[in-house]
Amino acid sequence: MPRIEIIGLENFPIVKKGDDLAQLIVKVATENYVKIDDGDIIVVSSKIVSKSEGRIVDIRDVEPSKKALDIAEITGKDPRLVEVILRESTKVVKATKGHLIVSTKHGIVCANAGVDKSNVVGDPYIVALLPEDPDRSAERIRAGIKELTGKDVAVLITDTYGRPLREGHINMAVGLSGLEPFRDYRGKKDLFGYVLRIKRIALADEIASAAELVMGNGSEGVPVAIIKGLKYTRSEESSARELNMPEEKWLFR
Amino acid sequence: MPRIEIIGLENFPIVKKGDDLAQLIVKVATENYVKIDDGDIIVVSSKIVSKSEGRIVDIRDVEPSKKALDIAEITGKDPRLVEVILRESTKVVKATKGHLIVSTKHGIVCANAGVDKSNVVGDPYIVALLPEDPDRSAERIRAGIKELTGKDVAVLITDTYGRPLREGHINMAVGLSGLEPFRDYRGKKDLFGYVLRIKRIALADEIASAAELVMGNGSEGVPVAIIKGLKYTRSEESSARELNMPEEKWLFR
Repeated sequence: MPRIEIIGLENFPIVKKGDDLAQLIVKVATENYVKIDDGDIIVVSSKIVSKSEGRIVDIRDVEPSKKALDIAEITGKDPRLVEVILRESTKVVKATKGHLIVSTKHGIVCANAGVDKSNVVGDPYIVALLPEDPDRSAERIRAGIKELTGKDVAVLITDTYGRPLREGHINMAVGLSGLEPFRDYRGKKDLFGYVLRIKRIALADEIASAAELVMGNGSEGVPVAIIKGLKYTRSEESSARELNMPEEKWLFR
Repeated sequence: MPRIEIIGLENFPIVKKGDDLAQLIVKVATENYVKIDDGDIIVVSSKIVSKSEGRIVDIRDVEPSKKALDIAEITGKDPRLVEVILRESTKVVKATKGHLIVSTKHGIVCANAGVDKSNVVGDPYIVALLPEDPDRSAERIRAGIKELTGKDVAVLITDTYGRPLREGHINMAVGLSGLEPFRDYRGKKDLFGYVLRIKRIALADEIASAAELVMGNGSEGVPVAIIKGLKYTRSEESSARELNMPEEKWLFR
């Protein structure tokens, strides 16, 4: 019987620049009697990764460019915040009243380049940027856990985003290490022998959403979840970038 | 420590028109020593709901309209299949080579109105339509489980869809009964007292994705998952339609 378990790590300390997340995760897991096993998937909120990596900006220190001022005018956003967003982006996809959708340096199309002020320090001028290279961050955490526990886990870095066409935010994978992001059914047969042509499940995004069920986004302070019992394909080469649809395939432009 | 468990119901029989899904779910759960408890969430693949409700069409019996012939020309799809899709739709959102995106009668924007030939009978001319009223289907299954076990569960009907901007399919909620589809953080405070303005998690879609981790879409034949331990807001009024973004809010058109 396929059975998986998702455990949220409560009582996680406030993360500061320079903190070793692998160490914190192992410590909090141990304190909470959660054993880390081979094959576990450790899901980490991008927010604490950003904080540990010092990816925090006080927008009062930022000088907006002409382009930022123009986009601030259109969107109604603070020009200094827009400037920060633009520096994290390769392209503005859509700017309308209240909305600034960009393609980030990582290739993620999302609102505000993932720049966010919640759960940073409670000061609306201080914002967190996404990790510089979330795959690399995941890899570092994974290596750290291996070193501390001897266990071979997979690590996902996740963030919540709005979606075109659907209401509400869901958690998605922005960085990963140790697992193949897709579960590919193409060419496989269904129950009745019909060969599936297109089904390829975005496993990493589904794992992110599953983890979010115990993580929460308010004041719960559960920035890490551990998933046990899930079968997945290990990989040393994969990247969360594979989940970003290349622009030439966009149907809505 | 927040902890949830997701169990896939293996060895599920092939569902036929007229089958009582509540009865089958309770039977298979019992056979597999899975106890159904108050508060459990039962996630059911739309495919078996469609089959139990007889929502199966042989496209060889379908006469394509002029509009279906035109769209078949553009998309390269079988005109009879296009006709079936159009009958399930209120609007064609996008038709290009290989792609037919519509808004379904339920208000879901997706490819092919969810009409699908996998896991039906292995005959590519025989397709399953989405349930006529998936909320109502969920409600019926929920009432049946209540009657058979005395337990108050929530029920989700789900289907896998592709997404704009992201690669791969994920499982989403198309019908629900007994739970509020969102977890609303708006107005709540974060860890540091900052009031969240926009965060509203599409809980039902995240639950669907979580369930899919054990359900699989190939020949595994795991059409039902049971989620235990998840805190959610009960509701007798909610609908999966709330997850559909109204067209006036679409940023990509």
